[in-house]
Amino acid sequence: MLQVFGKVKELRLGLQRFQSVIRERIMRPDDANIVGNVHGGTILKMIEEAGGIISTRHCNKQPGDRCVAALARVERTDFLHPMLIGEVAHVSAELTYTSRHSVEVQVNVMSENILTGSKKLTNKATLWYVPFSLENVDKVTDVPQIEYASPEQEEEGKKRYEAQKMERLESKERNGEAIIPVISPDRQTKEEYTVGFSQSSLIHLVGPSDCTLHGFVHGGVTMKLMDEVAGIVAARHCKTNIVTASVDAINFHRKIKKGCVVTVSGRMTFTSNKSMEIEVFVDADPLVETTKGKYRAVSAFFTYISLDKDGKPLPVTSLKLETQEEKKRFEEGKVRYLQTKAKRQAEQERQQ
Amino acid sequence: MLQVFGKVKELRLGLQRFQSVIRERIMRPDDANIVGNVHGGTILKMIEEAGGIISTRHCNKQPGDRCVAALARVERTDFLHPMLIGEVAHVSAELTYTSRHSVEVQVNVMSENILTGSKKLTNKATLWYVPFSLENVDKVTDVPQIEYASPEQEEEGKKRYEAQKMERLESKERNGEAIIPVISPDRQTKEEYTVGFSQSSLIHLVGPSDCTLHGFVHGGVTMKLMDEVAGIVAARHCKTNIVTASVDAINFHRKIKKGCVVTVSGRMTFTSNKSMEIEVFVDADPLVETTKGKYRAVSAFFTYISLDKDGKPLPVTSLKLETQEEKKRFEEGKVRYLQTKAKRQAEQERQQ
Amino acid sequence: MLQVFGKVKELRLGLQRFQSVIRERIMRPDDANIVGNVHGGTILKMIEEAGGIISTRHCNKQPGDRCVAALARVERTDFLHPMLIGEVAHVSAELTYTSRHSVEVQVNVMSENILTGSKKLTNKATLWYVPFSLENVDKVTDVPQIEYASPEQEEEGKKRYEAQKMERLESKERNGEAIIPVISPDRQTKEEYTVGFSQSSLIHLVGPSDCTLHGFVHGGVTMKLMDEVAGIVAARHCKTNIVTASVDAINFHRKIKKGCVVTVSGRMTFTSNKSMEIEVFVDADPLVETTKGKYRAVSAFFTYISLDKDGKPLPVTSLKLETQEEKKRFEEGKVRYLQTKAKRQAEQERQQ
Repeated sequence: MLQVFGKVKELRLGLQRFQSVIRERIMRPDDANIVGNVHGGTILKMIEEAGGIISTRHCNKQPGDRCVAALARVERTDFLHPMLIGEVAHVSAELTYTSRHSVEVQVNVMSENILTGSKKLTNKATLWYVPFSLENVDKVTDVPQIEYASPEQEEEGKKRYEAQKMERLESKERNGEAIIPVISPDRQTKEEYTVGFSQSSLIHLVGPSDCTLHGFVHGGVTMKLMDEVAGIVAARHCKTNIVTASVDAINFHRKIKKGCVVTVSGRMTFTSNKSMEIEVFVDADPLVETTKGKYRAVSAFFTYISLDKDGKPLPVTSLKLETQEEKKRFEEGKVRYLQTKAKRQAEQERQQ
Repeated sequence: MLQVFGKVKELRLGLQRFQSVIRERIMRPDDANIVGNVHGGTILKMIEEAGGIISTRHCNKQPGDRCVAALARVERTDFLHPMLIGEVAHVSAELTYTSRHSVEVQVNVMSENILTGSKKLTNKATLWYVPFSLENVDKVTDVPQIEYASPEQEEEGKKRYEAQKMERLESKERNGEAIIPVISPDRQTKEEYTVGFSQSSLIHLVGPSDCTLHGFVHGGVTMKLMDEVAGIVAARHCKTNIVTASVDAINFHRKIKKGCVVTVSGRMTFTSNKSMEIEVFVDADPLVETTKGKYRAVSAFFTYISLDKDGKPLPVTSLKLETQEEKKRFEEGKVRYLQTKAKRQAEQERQQ
Repeated sequence: MLQVFGKVKELRLGLQRFQSVIRERIMRPDDANIVGNVHGGTILKMIEEAGGIISTRHCNKQPGDRCVAALARVERTDFLHPMLIGEVAHVSAELTYTSRHSVEVQVNVMSENILTGSKKLTNKATLWYVPFSLENVDKVTDVPQIEYASPEQEEEGKKRYEAQKMERLESKERNGEAIIPVISPDRQTKEEYTVGFSQSSLIHLVGPSDCTLHGFVHGGVTMKLMDEVAGIVAARHCKTNIVTASVDAINFHRKIKKGCVVTVSGRMTFTSNKSMEIEVFVDADPLVETTKGKYRAVSAFFTYISLDKDGKPLPVTSLKLETQEEKKRFEEGKVRYLQTKAKRQAEQERQQ
């Protein structure tokens, strides 16, 4: 596990440094819920900050346009252990693959209890960045190629690249169908445990601190807002201490400009015995520019679990389905759940 | 105007210090909108922080239960000048009246451009605080009485006290009728300039930084969220640089506990030639405690104006009224607007 | 200069790792003034966060009471280069000496422009921490001793330890005389360039995010507030883009507990041709607990310079002295200024 620290890796490989980025930060009350568990969104934001730094630095390594790397996609990521207030979060990032126009970054997060010395791996995330020229914000610049430890490593990286490229295209088509969710109905009239009862949305006026040098929202800020809404949906359903268990692959299709009003809405789609799947949408409203209307910027599935006082998973009350649409989404969620479960079992067997 | 700074008052009167609180803070990008105007809500939050400190300090001056002063009411306040990023905000607060169980605090805010030296009075606000025991959060403690410069001063304070006491009672009755606003309808289907088009709501999970030592939300935090929503409603309607012009008296009827999910909703009620009135509701959802359901914590009317590039007021497009309810609210808003206009004219004549 | 990165240092020494702490963060608009220069106080806060993590982690390395390291003293630190929005700040910390009850931490800050690749050393700071037991907040725990690369290294560390120990004692005596600064007089009546004209103060209600696990304010938070006030004083005097040039040794004599109201006041003491010295006091008011009155927690001297559009130092208008006290403080400031100048010249000669 100590291998995740890039410095040790450099010693062993003795190759061109992949310029690991490492940051350590102590978790404060504002990073966590009232039970003391750090928000999944806080961790996603730290992950993206590290990824953004390492990608932007790398992409500016050669002569040519100055550029800023924008987050294009985050692969599915699991939250392996809760992180607590007072612990130190170690975020280490390194470049693992480069295509002509994109960069793959692997980010690992470890939580360290500096009082007891105990350390735990909390997240492993894979992010894809695309560099855009500072001069011309729509121009994608060329990425300096990295060297690989072996031809196999490059080959596997290429496979991952092709796979995510395909998924992004599929997701983009689905995103194009302007599916606007039902804005939160009047909760007072809804029964407990229905989709409408826990449905939530928040709005956020994008400010300067949320944006990159380009003036577009950081992917990490968006993910943090999405997790915030997903958390409220889960909390309304369970009324317990809920935490992020995983986030499915997120594709950032369209940029969100400074000054937009962003509406982040979430609704529960599926519940298993001990987990909840929540679908989150991010819609951006340019406000001032009336040529462009409101548009769907991002969407993703968050999985939450419910914990008791001792941090043990509690059973989750089944989602009460009322409409045909809700039943359809439940079935689709069940498929995703079973697929993930199968993948996990396959990986465990592979490791034995 | 020089006298509103209590420090000078202390020197001249030579009386018991009313323990003026003064704070100065430079305005940052996050305090303002993208045009550089500081948010009305940021100023309201600073005003309340100063009021809270001076009241809590005063109420702990005598032996007995330690207590924390909670904001009960803010009188109508006008935003006289915009404040800009880079300016220094001076907030000075002083106690002006004490009853057995409440404290009246006068807070003035001045913006100073430290490069040019120019100063402007931006706000004058009157706040009422009630001290609650730290031991027993429902017990109101006795307030140490202040001394007055003259019997007339005490008499006028008493009148203000009686007036606000009555208004609070009336407002409490109206608040008690569970008036649930229609949650923002699907904006996609709404015509521009209708009530539904600009209607907005946000949710916020109350965290430790939002709360007092008691674990209840600071009045200033609530006001800042309310102004945020009102601002989005105004921006959606006008699509220009909009700023807070005034806020009607706000009564904080029910405390909001840490861990609640707060839903802040706003809708436009009335438009005049150059102003917009927005009604804002704050509903608190205890989430975990299921004995108490969701409840109305605060409501208030915010007035916004629309400014051009040079900061001059622009005409406001009339609100398109669609339902009987909306027409009724428009008439009520018109009455409030004319009443305020009359009061202002009366005061101007009095000063001549 | 890559040597300041502990990972490389570890390779060369091959000794027991001092577990360097490294953090990298991109500087955002809120970290800087409106001209884009990162606040000295922002950097001081990052420095202290890194020092706190490495000390606390080290002090918990052995069986015994769990403890949290509290900042006791920061040696004089210079700000060698301005840091700008968009740059990445690298903060690396390592342990350099341990006495029975204290830890010396060396922190280096480097700013990196990820677009151009240029790197600059911005700060070198030395901090002293003392570990307090979590069980008994007044009990100082024993510090695990570190190993030194050579006897000379240990000897030099011991000299530094003895020197700071003596200075802390002297400073503590001076701090004891309850000298309360005159709260900002009515600036309206003051002439430009006088002490009273630029004098400033701010108050801050200490919240949970400001505090350590013990519930006491982080030294870094205090330093950030101090730099904020010093900056306002300097800005009022010069009316230009002013930046922190250096901070004299700061001793943290008395802890500040969560819930206190902290008053930070600053006044200009001395001006040279191109610099300003500002004295900053931090007074803590327990607010709720009246057995303890208001007390002086920290004091320090900040030196600021004035920069033109191109970042070149501008001449500073002389301070207009009005009272005997002000003249006395000016002379004392002049002595400090000349002493520092002499030390710097001596070091430059030594390096040649």
